[in-house]
Formats: sequence, C-alpha cells, structure tokens
Amino acid sequence: MDNNLQDYSHKRYNILTGEWVLVSPHRAKRPWQGQNEAVSNEERPAHDPNCYLCAGNTRINGEQNPDYKDVFIFTNDFAALQTTSPVFSVNEGLFIAESEQGICKVVCFSPDHSKSLADMAVEDINKVVKAWQKEYLLLSSNELINYVQIFENKGAVMGCSNPHPHGQIWSQSTLPNEVEKKDQHQQAYYSKNKSSLLGDYLTQELKANERIIYQNDDFVVLTPFWAVWPFETMIAPKKNYKDISELSDGESLAFADAISKITKAYDKLFQTSFPYSSGIHQAPTNGASNDHWHWHMSFYPPLLRSATVKKFMVGYEMFGSPQRDITAEQAVERLKALIS
Amino acid sequence: MDNNLQDYSHKRYNILTGEWVLVSPHRAKRPWQGQNEAVSNEERPAHDPNCYLCAGNTRINGEQNPDYKDVFIFTNDFAALQTTSPVFSVNEGLFIAESEQGICKVVCFSPDHSKSLADMAVEDINKVVKAWQKEYLLLSSNELINYVQIFENKGAVMGCSNPHPHGQIWSQSTLPNEVEKKDQHQQAYYSKNKSSLLGDYLTQELKANERIIYQNDDFVVLTPFWAVWPFETMIAPKKNYKDISELSDGESLAFADAISKITKAYDKLFQTSFPYSSGIHQAPTNGASNDHWHWHMSFYPPLLRSATVKKFMVGYEMFGSPQRDITAEQAVERLKALIS
Ligand SMILES: O=P(O)(O)O[C@H]1O[C@H](CO)[C@@H](O)[C@H](O)[C@H]1O
Ligand SMILES: O=P(O)(O)O[C@H]1O[C@H](CO)[C@@H](O)[C@H](O)[C@H]1O
Repeated sequence: MDNNLQDYSHKRYNILTGEWVLVSPHRAKRPWQGQNEAVSNEERPAHDPNCYLCAGNTRINGEQNPDYKDVFIFTNDFAALQTTSPVFSVNEGLFIAESEQGICKVVCFSPDHSKSLADMAVEDINKVVKAWQKEYLLLSSNELINYVQIFENKGAVMGCSNPHPHGQIWSQSTLPNEVEKKDQHQQAYYSKNKSSLLGDYLTQELKANERIIYQNDDFVVLTPFWAVWPFETMIAPKKNYKDISELSDGESLAFADAISKITKAYDKLFQTSFPYSSGIHQAPTNGASNDHWHWHMSFYPPLLRSATVKKFMVGYEMFGSPQRDITAEQAVERLKALIS
Repeated sequence: MDNNLQDYSHKRYNILTGEWVLVSPHRAKRPWQGQNEAVSNEERPAHDPNCYLCAGNTRINGEQNPDYKDVFIFTNDFAALQTTSPVFSVNEGLFIAESEQGICKVVCFSPDHSKSLADMAVEDINKVVKAWQKEYLLLSSNELINYVQIFENKGAVMGCSNPHPHGQIWSQSTLPNEVEKKDQHQQAYYSKNKSSLLGDYLTQELKANERIIYQNDDFVVLTPFWAVWPFETMIAPKKNYKDISELSDGESLAFADAISKITKAYDKLFQTSFPYSSGIHQAPTNGASNDHWHWHMSFYPPLLRSATVKKFMVGYEMFGSPQRDITAEQAVERLKALIS
C-alpha cells in the first residue's frame, strides 16, 4: 500500500455508497481544548426498579414487561413510524413529500440491566442474533414493509436514553437514503461483474491483511478502507449472504463470536463502556431477488482519543465531507492488539 | 399545503441533494430521559489572556496575533489540508484513494472575546461578509483550489474548542460530497429548465408564505421544506447569484442584516447562546461558468427542546435517513415570533 496514505492528506472512496472521506494523518498531533464528554463508569444493578426495560416493570404507556429470561421484543411506545398513517403524497412544484408507513420495535438484549453485549456470553449474544433473524423474517412477510433496519445506540453520548442493554428495529415501506445508495452501488457492480461487490472486497482485504482485526471460519471483522469514524469497524460474512436469515446455526454462533470479540476490544481501548451506534445493512424485503446484496454490520463509535474526547462531525463534515485524522490502518493496529 | 404533513409520518425530498428526511410529527410528545448538554452562560471578558485567538496573544506555534481591530484571518496551525502534500493516487482493485491539497484558514469575527455574531452590530457583521468575499476571490485565483468552504462551528456541543467568535475556511482541489450532490442537482435542473433551481424554489416559498422567517429587499431567511435539524434555516439571495463575491455593497449589508436577525432569534429561542454549525454553499472555483449555482448559507443547530436537550443524529439516522419530530412549519412559527 502507498506510504503516502499514512503521511499526507487524501480522500478515500467508499465503494458501497460512492462517497469520499477526507483523511488528514498529519493532523493527529492537534491539541484538544474543546468539550469533554462525561463518563459514567458506575456499576449498575442487575435489576433497576426505575428502568422501563427491566423485567416486570411498567412502561410509560402503562404496559407491564413480562418476566423475560433472555431477549424481549415489543413495539416502540413512541414509534417514529406507524402502520395506521394514511397514504398520501405532496407534489406541488418543488415541494415533494410522500407518506411513510412502518413498524418500530425495541429489542432488549438481556434482562440483566448491568450488562452490555461486551459483557454477555457468546451463547447469549447468539440469542439476540436469533431474535434479529426471526424479526427480519416476520417483518419481511408484512406487505407494508420493504426494508428492515436493525440498529443499536449505545451510551448517553449516542443519544441512548436508557443504559439497559437494548437495540431497535425500524422497518418501513421505502428504502432510506443510506440503503438506497448501497443498493445502487452493489447492483451496478453485480450487473457488470456477476459477483458480489463486498465479497470481492473481502477477498482483497484478506489478501492484503492490513485492515483485518479478527476472523473466524465464517466472519471477518475489519476497518473498511474508507472508514469515517476513528474506530469504525465492519463485521461481514465470508459467504455472499444477502440477509441474516440465511445463517445456519453454526454461522449465527460465529456471528455472535465476532460481535463479542469486537465489543470486548472496544471496551478495553479507553477502559470505558465504549459508546457507538451499530447497524445491519441487508437486502430489502421488497420481493426482488436482491442477489447483489451482501449483508454486513457496522459499528460507528464517536470516541477519538480517550473515554472523554470524541470526534465531532460538524461544520466541514456537514457541509463538505466526513473527515478523520488517524488512518484506518492505525486504528486497526490498536484494535487488533486488544482482541483476546 | 396538505394537513397530513402536520400529523403523520412522511418523508420530504431535498431538491438540492436528492435525499430524503423522515418526519414524525406525532412523536414530539416523547419524554426525554437521555443526556443533557452542559450550558455555559458565563460572561466572558472582552479580552482573555489565555485565548489563542485574542489580539496580541501568542498561538500554539509561537506566532503572535496582531493587535487587530475588526476581522483577522490566518492559516490554520493544524490544517487538515495542505498545499505541500505530494500528488498521488491509489487504484488497487477496490482500494481507491486520491491525494487532496488545500488551504485551511481561521477567520476571527471580532477582537471582542465576549461576543458572537448575534451580539455584533450589523456593520461589524458586514466586515465579516466583506472578509469572506475577499477570501473567496483570493482562494479562487489559486490554481490548486477548486472549491472554497466557509463555515462556523459555534458552541462546545458543536466541537468548537474556543468561544472566541470565529469561523473557518477550508478550500481544496476537489468538490466535497455535499457540494458534488448540489452541483449535480442544480445542473440537471438548469439544463432542463434554463432557470435556477433554488431561485424557482424561493419564488414558490415566497408565494406559499408558510416557511418564511424573515426577508429584506435582497435576502430571504426560511426553513427549507426538507430541513433536517429541528431549527435549521437557510439565508438565500433573491437574485440568482452563484457566489458571495457578486454582492454589491448594499446587498452585503442586507446579508449581514439577515445573519443578525436569525442569530438573535436563535439566542432568544432557549435563552442561551445558541450552538450551530453554519456554512455557505456556493459555486466551485474551477473555472467553469457554474451558471446553475445559486449560493446560500445554512444553519444546522442541534438543540431540540431546551438549552440542554439536543437532537441526536445516531443509529437510524446514520444507517437510514435523517429523522425529525417537529415539522419545519412548527419551527418556523416559533422562530418567526422571535424576529425583532
Ligand atoms: O478545526 P477545529 O475547530 O479544531 O475542529 C472542529 O471543526 C472541524 C471542522 O468541522 C472538525 O473536523 C473537528 O472535528 C472539530 O472539532
Ligand atoms: O429511540 P430513542 O432511543 O428514544 O432515540 C434515539 O434514537 C433514535 C433513532 O436513532 C433517534 O432518532 C433519537 O434522536 C435518539 O435520541
């Protein structure tokens, strides 16, 4: 790989979205005099009577959570998308809008309020994976739903309002922006090359072995060449699977192992329960064959230098392009050393 | 306008970028139990001996600031872009990168450490506008530079590491992502209709009069139909100008008046020095005619409910599309009432 990439400003191309990231490796020496994030390393109890996600507790709408033992899923009490909205559209000159229907769910990963995915046994993470598979299939079969977005916001700095281990699923009738871009770029490559864009990329990454953090028989964990967030990573299946429902029992356990490995490494990096947003991009559930899709899970963590100093994606990033200082390769070196 | 837009989930189309924003008006009632931002309403002195932007003080690289009286501009001591980087490119299969050269500057708006644009006299804001015009022309004439991004990060929550009133200018050899999108969409419309996309939009907005916050003879301040941030606004010239250098003396004063009006209204909204990132999108300086460009300045403020509760653009927003709860029209109503 060109040594200039470690020394001089450049931009890298995201093959999945067609967008660029600006990399400024020489800038990592910049002193930080800005905002520090609060870290809460407080121990949490296994059950918190004030937590609306803990087993047996009552939620804001008066419903009582069951005495659940592993994963518990319910429809979001303040859903951003609903199935009951009317269908309408606005097409008045340059004012363009469309109604959007959907279903939003909350997925509690464990009844144990004190845990995060990083603290859970691989077998228990596997129960979360199985629940995601089941929900993906269930929502796929709903004719209103054409795309299912599984994600997690972890940590107060990522807008998470409750430390109880949980993620969300927002499913909807049309493809959101980011999915639309990946759909187009994978489709164009597949039409031209009759092979999977991400599959071919993984082959190239495994050969180069410069950005691989971990792998098992079925999964690769790496920092993509075009990563935006300082310690961004991606987990992808080695086989060209288009969605998570295709995983066999053994493969779903291997996926759980990969999640466990990277989240544990994250927690060690700055000795803190590492905040991030994670999400799974996979084939739309629109009835098309979607053979061009290769699903993957990404982690976007905001921290840059320590438990309290994050990367701000602000002015230049909002109006221009995302920007990073440390290179993907430098991040990989640090994360790789923490895998155990 | 369709009443459904105030009651039910829908997505709105951004004519300048081709992307969508998800709007969930019914969700504004959601309680907030997450992170609260720190507010610092401390009075600042007019001169701070520890501020590296104040007149006469010494910066981290040993240089001393002059005893400046209005606007002071210098090259960023930790520039993300440099003119001295070598030119190179990486084209190894699916690893694609290009060197990027550029110049980054810091623009101090005033020697008075205690002020922000909202507290400055219109005549003093006008000196900032004049400085932006001068820098835009100066950088345009540099053959390395094909695009000039003027922006400001205001407030610690927006990654601003120094409260001294200042903005930045990052100029570079290629077009960043957001500018590329707007270039393409304006070009397509112009080729087809032989008129300005944003100009035609402004005409439609002025007629509808539902999202106009303020106007003077030369400028409109509005919340775009497709606004992402809760209290996002745009200032645009009524004439189809492609860049800020085209403003006459009277027009630049009218632009300063518009900036003054909206920043003062922002400060009143939650009784706090209102944080935001603002930026000017204008024609590239690539020697092309760029007649399709209509320049505009946007404000992206993160606050949602109060001085301490912001909107988090996280999980769904990062993996799907941006999402908002209060509608653009509701935001306009509140901001309009605060214009004086
Ligand atoms: O240049 P500054 O003010 O030190 O840094 C700030 O603005 C930059 C440009 O938007 C961002 O890249 C940084 O993350 C942010 O902290
Ligand atoms: O749904 P929550 O956890 O209440 O809310 C959080 O995640 C949502 C989906 O990413 C965001 O829209 C909100 O801004 C964020 O605070």
